[in-house]
Amino acid sequence: MASLDLTVSSVELTRNICDIPSVSGDERVLADAIHEAISALPHLEVYRDGDTIVARTNLGRAQRVVIAGHIDTVPINENLPTRDFEVDGVPVIWGRGTVDMKAGTAVQLKLAAELAAPRVDITWMWYDHEEVDADLNGLTRLARTRPDLFQGDFAILGEPSNGAVEGGCNGNLRAIVRTHGVRAHSARAWVGDNAIHKAAPVLARLAEYRPREVPVEGLVYREGLNAVRIRGGVAGNVIPDLCEVEVNYRFAPSRSLDEAERHVRDVFDGFDVEVVDGAAGARPGLDAPLAQEFLAAVAAEPRPKYGWTDVARFSALGVPAVNYGPGDPSLAHHDEERVPIAQIEAVERGLRSWLAGS
Amino acid sequence: MASLDLTVSSVELTRNICDIPSVSGDERVLADAIHEAISALPHLEVYRDGDTIVARTNLGRAQRVVIAGHIDTVPINENLPTRDFEVDGVPVIWGRGTVDMKAGTAVQLKLAAELAAPRVDITWMWYDHEEVDADLNGLTRLARTRPDLFQGDFAILGEPSNGAVEGGCNGNLRAIVRTHGVRAHSARAWVGDNAIHKAAPVLARLAEYRPREVPVEGLVYREGLNAVRIRGGVAGNVIPDLCEVEVNYRFAPSRSLDEAERHVRDVFDGFDVEVVDGAAGARPGLDAPLAQEFLAAVAAEPRPKYGWTDVARFSALGVPAVNYGPGDPSLAHHDEERVPIAQIEAVERGLRSWLAGS
Repeated sequence: MASLDLTVSSVELTRNICDIPSVSGDERVLADAIHEAISALPHLEVYRDGDTIVARTNLGRAQRVVIAGHIDTVPINENLPTRDFEVDGVPVIWGRGTVDMKAGTAVQLKLAAELAAPRVDITWMWYDHEEVDADLNGLTRLARTRPDLFQGDFAILGEPSNGAVEGGCNGNLRAIVRTHGVRAHSARAWVGDNAIHKAAPVLARLAEYRPREVPVEGLVYREGLNAVRIRGGVAGNVIPDLCEVEVNYRFAPSRSLDEAERHVRDVFDGFDVEVVDGAAGARPGLDAPLAQEFLAAVAAEPRPKYGWTDVARFSALGVPAVNYGPGDPSLAHHDEERVPIAQIEAVERGLRSWLAGS
Repeated sequence: MASLDLTVSSVELTRNICDIPSVSGDERVLADAIHEAISALPHLEVYRDGDTIVARTNLGRAQRVVIAGHIDTVPINENLPTRDFEVDGVPVIWGRGTVDMKAGTAVQLKLAAELAAPRVDITWMWYDHEEVDADLNGLTRLARTRPDLFQGDFAILGEPSNGAVEGGCNGNLRAIVRTHGVRAHSARAWVGDNAIHKAAPVLARLAEYRPREVPVEGLVYREGLNAVRIRGGVAGNVIPDLCEVEVNYRFAPSRSLDEAERHVRDVFDGFDVEVVDGAAGARPGLDAPLAQEFLAAVAAEPRPKYGWTDVARFSALGVPAVNYGPGDPSLAHHDEERVPIAQIEAVERGLRSWLAGS
């Protein structure tokens, strides 16, 4: 089995854990290595559930912070092992997982090993299956079996945020808009009713749609409504009786999931709409005292998070949560995924200065 | 393997061969059964190529007629096995293939078995892959390997024509209209460019299109331009970079294939259009002496054929050809495909009276 040395730098640790492939569903080797390394630390109480590892300090501090990072990645596309090079003079580590989000996880592992007496109690969580269906997510499983582990006054997800603090996140809804017709031989189209032609106004409404920009607690969330898939047709000589347009609505955290669903139904009024999947967003939660303290310590301007992340899970449990991690989120899942080395070091410094206290 | 009894009525034979599923690409079982039954007939010389079976009389008659029927169907949609019932008091056989075109093929098999000494020599052809790309069509293959088998003075395709004689056929062209964009994470849609949204005007032009009606040699051909398939999308959280609309243009035999292609490119001016498949139509050809004789014998008024059929293939080889078969072509490929029993019997009588001679 692979093993991890937590005494190396967080930059070297980033290379090491990226070079242990852990595409969703195949996290076992990396989880075992983390479990082994963390279990050797006497100041942490360790709990494991599947490929999710939880490690806690129990110092009797007045406050507790949860710091979490997922250990899985999207599929590798000839972008492992990692390589070091420079982009416009900036040294980077290139490869799958460097941005989303093993650099963030490496910083957390490094600090978990070294901060034996932080100024707040810390619950570290490293979890599996974040990049796939929410049902499979290690935190979904853990929230069911050990909800007590989520207790805290503040939570930080190490998702890539370019070293800035990204508050809250947009909600996420997927729906299928269907048009119906009647099949017929395409040589006698007038006998049938073409379902694909009927989808013209669905696509026109999407093309004309102007997404909102919504201020929530001082941060501006940018929405989006997009077709992500379309399919229809039976054979090359058959008038199709069904066309399905799958739409993805990303909505500001000021809107509930129900309101988001109503909005999508309004946009496609007159059409058959089925909502297939949805998750509410999370308000920034930056007015919490610990959040204010954290912002001051890391000296970062808060920004909105556009993508849905597990901060919404903590938010729903009443724990204010932010994203704070190295890497450009626009490069997440990208074949040219790469993280600036300086950002890894900056995030480590930021977290360390706040957690180590005076 | 399945086997066929050619001594039963053509109506019973229709049920039997419909109940042997033979969607394009899966004709083997039915082809084997036909091959076995036909090979048992001493008055026929049998040739097989893939799942196409050719059977010829060699009586030294002055004239030869080619009579052909395809044995494949479009996909089954919960409409097999066949069922017998009445529609408005008319007994029908319901199920996939009853119209297009196993009733016609059943009549041919029945007559091939019984007409040992017809007044003209007959070349029977039962062939595969008619419902898919022309490249795969059994007759395309046969025309390459055994062009001599297509020689004749007149040809009859058993395609459904409601028991009337349908002259010529419309041409048929398939093209793919593509829209292009840029992939991005759907949480940051503004970084990408949605190819599916860009297909809105393609569908709008199709929805607004008004097809022509064109008189050719006294018969009026009705055209059609339709989307038959649409596809686009990468994943539920990715802005798609490609959308493909497959369109099918059915055009009157007065228009050449080149003219048809120009028309489709005009309709989708400004878009990326690739023509993937095309076949010219066939002029009615009813002035041929054997055609006139045949029309008189079956006492039918000629009509235009809207669908492209393999009559165009014979027409291109200089063999005048018509469609003559049981079943309403409007019900071809329809989920409620069904053929009136009386039409099967009438087409059998018509063909028999002409071929058996005095």
